[in-house]
Amino acid sequence: MPHTHHHGPDCGHGCGHHHGPRHIYIYSPASAIRDKAAFKRGVARLKALGHEVEVDPDAQAVHTRFAGDDATRLAAIHRAAASGADVALITRGAYGLTRILPGIQYQAVAKAIERGMKFVGFSDFTAFQLAVLAKTGAATWAGPSLLSFGEDETPDDIMQACFDDLLTGQGEGAGWTLGREKTHPQAEVYVKKATLWGGNLAVLTALLCTPYFPQVKGGILFVEDVGEHPYRIERMLTQLLHAGVLAQQKAIVLGQFTGYKLAPHDKGFKLQSVVDWLRTQVKAPVLTNLPFGHVPTKVLLPVGAQVSLSVEGRDALIYWGHTH
Amino acid sequence: MPHTHHHGPDCGHGCGHHHGPRHIYIYSPASAIRDKAAFKRGVARLKALGHEVEVDPDAQAVHTRFAGDDATRLAAIHRAAASGADVALITRGAYGLTRILPGIQYQAVAKAIERGMKFVGFSDFTAFQLAVLAKTGAATWAGPSLLSFGEDETPDDIMQACFDDLLTGQGEGAGWTLGREKTHPQAEVYVKKATLWGGNLAVLTALLCTPYFPQVKGGILFVEDVGEHPYRIERMLTQLLHAGVLAQQKAIVLGQFTGYKLAPHDKGFKLQSVVDWLRTQVKAPVLTNLPFGHVPTKVLLPVGAQVSLSVEGRDALIYWGHTH
Repeated sequence: MPHTHHHGPDCGHGCGHHHGPRHIYIYSPASAIRDKAAFKRGVARLKALGHEVEVDPDAQAVHTRFAGDDATRLAAIHRAAASGADVALITRGAYGLTRILPGIQYQAVAKAIERGMKFVGFSDFTAFQLAVLAKTGAATWAGPSLLSFGEDETPDDIMQACFDDLLTGQGEGAGWTLGREKTHPQAEVYVKKATLWGGNLAVLTALLCTPYFPQVKGGILFVEDVGEHPYRIERMLTQLLHAGVLAQQKAIVLGQFTGYKLAPHDKGFKLQSVVDWLRTQVKAPVLTNLPFGHVPTKVLLPVGAQVSLSVEGRDALIYWGHTH
Repeated sequence: MPHTHHHGPDCGHGCGHHHGPRHIYIYSPASAIRDKAAFKRGVARLKALGHEVEVDPDAQAVHTRFAGDDATRLAAIHRAAASGADVALITRGAYGLTRILPGIQYQAVAKAIERGMKFVGFSDFTAFQLAVLAKTGAATWAGPSLLSFGEDETPDDIMQACFDDLLTGQGEGAGWTLGREKTHPQAEVYVKKATLWGGNLAVLTALLCTPYFPQVKGGILFVEDVGEHPYRIERMLTQLLHAGVLAQQKAIVLGQFTGYKLAPHDKGFKLQSVVDWLRTQVKAPVLTNLPFGHVPTKVLLPVGAQVSLSVEGRDALIYWGHTH
């Protein structure tokens, strides 16, 4: 395992040479594409990297706010699973997966994963990832969507490098620097081995008490969110706390929480208040600043895989070794 | 039981004479009062009706966004329970109860209710109401907050009349006219007897899988919300659906959903889409237009009490008879 001394986010891979082009299947399981130019840019950029990019026939379907009606999106998921691609990449998340969870053929998805397919996405896609984990135990990848590659600006270097590592099988970990906080233990050194799981906090809590919520005991839970005020983040964490989920984890890793607005009447209540409060409620370490969320710089993380989490002072590393 | 033929919302009481002044205890279990003028107006209006209004010493406390820290708000709840008042009325909801649920002395609250005290409130207060129901089986009242009486305009007539009925023990039901929708059965006549429960949808779903979520089988569930886009309302209803909660209800009654904004990319997806979808997912009737929520016209509803729900065409009545 590599040492944890580093600066800023990285993908923790050992060597950088490529293994040739990969087959990427692009599909839309949730909300409809709104920015067609971004969609085209994303496809073009992946092709420019030399990959075979296969676009699902309904990737640009529109049915009210969804990328096609429920049956259309379910069929797209199952075509992705049957495509034989190396990577199945969602176009975007937003909303659409929770309502179709009962219609997913989980065994077909698990078989595709067993054959080597990597399902990649984030945000609303968390519903798919946790449901697959709950129903089959198979691992998927928290990472970018196609639109993460289609932004106006050049895609983020670290996100691209981590995605490239996934494609080439070089990815073996994600390292970052913990938040510089008064309350954070500075001198700790520890390693915890456990199942990594998590994703978008709102989507994850929206699965509690359903058959699609994985029962991960002794795990490492990571969460991120966008557009949720800290009081709502706290309410969701409170639900996980009172449901007994947090007490069962070996570590809680907070990613990026963005896109909310504090109000004058918050009077000092802020995200750090929630983090401070959370640390009084759970015994496990609460780590911050994971480079994952609705931000350009996103590492890739295996959801449902065995990992080791190493912390040395402010350096943290989630390590899973070679995946093939 | 009164017949169900009527026009618009009403409180279903039989006679209107008063039984003299009542003792109302005002306290703040959640967010801090921001509009002090509204607070004063609310107190003054209740006093003008001849009631004894007792204000908790920490009713106007401020601790960041909360009405005092957790211990302060818990003490206020317990002072309210020990006050011997006829009604314990929250100043306002917003956010603050979920995080203090483990500290509430539920038996003390249940004893106060047994002695005749009526706990009244809505929104964030749903957390208290459902926790009391889950822990003790005791009933509380979904209804206005003090600030509902403190608005710039004169308080809503129906809300005032229903509250007055509660104070005088005259309240025995709440009637309303169902939404005029194509998909609504027009000619149905039925009566269902069951436990009424519910409240704010976001707060209710935030209790799922915790010890504070009541297990009500064969109940009548009512929900309302504010500031939640229909896709989020659908995601919450989907969680209740997949958790098996909806299938256990004899009826689902939708109150007012307000304060959200549809976007161009919703392309026709709206609250009615969610209602239509919900009706394909559950066998029980889904009734709409209950006059309850973040709106001026609010009826009072007993949370955790046995009621009968009568529907005759578009007329609906939730009836509980005299409460003492």
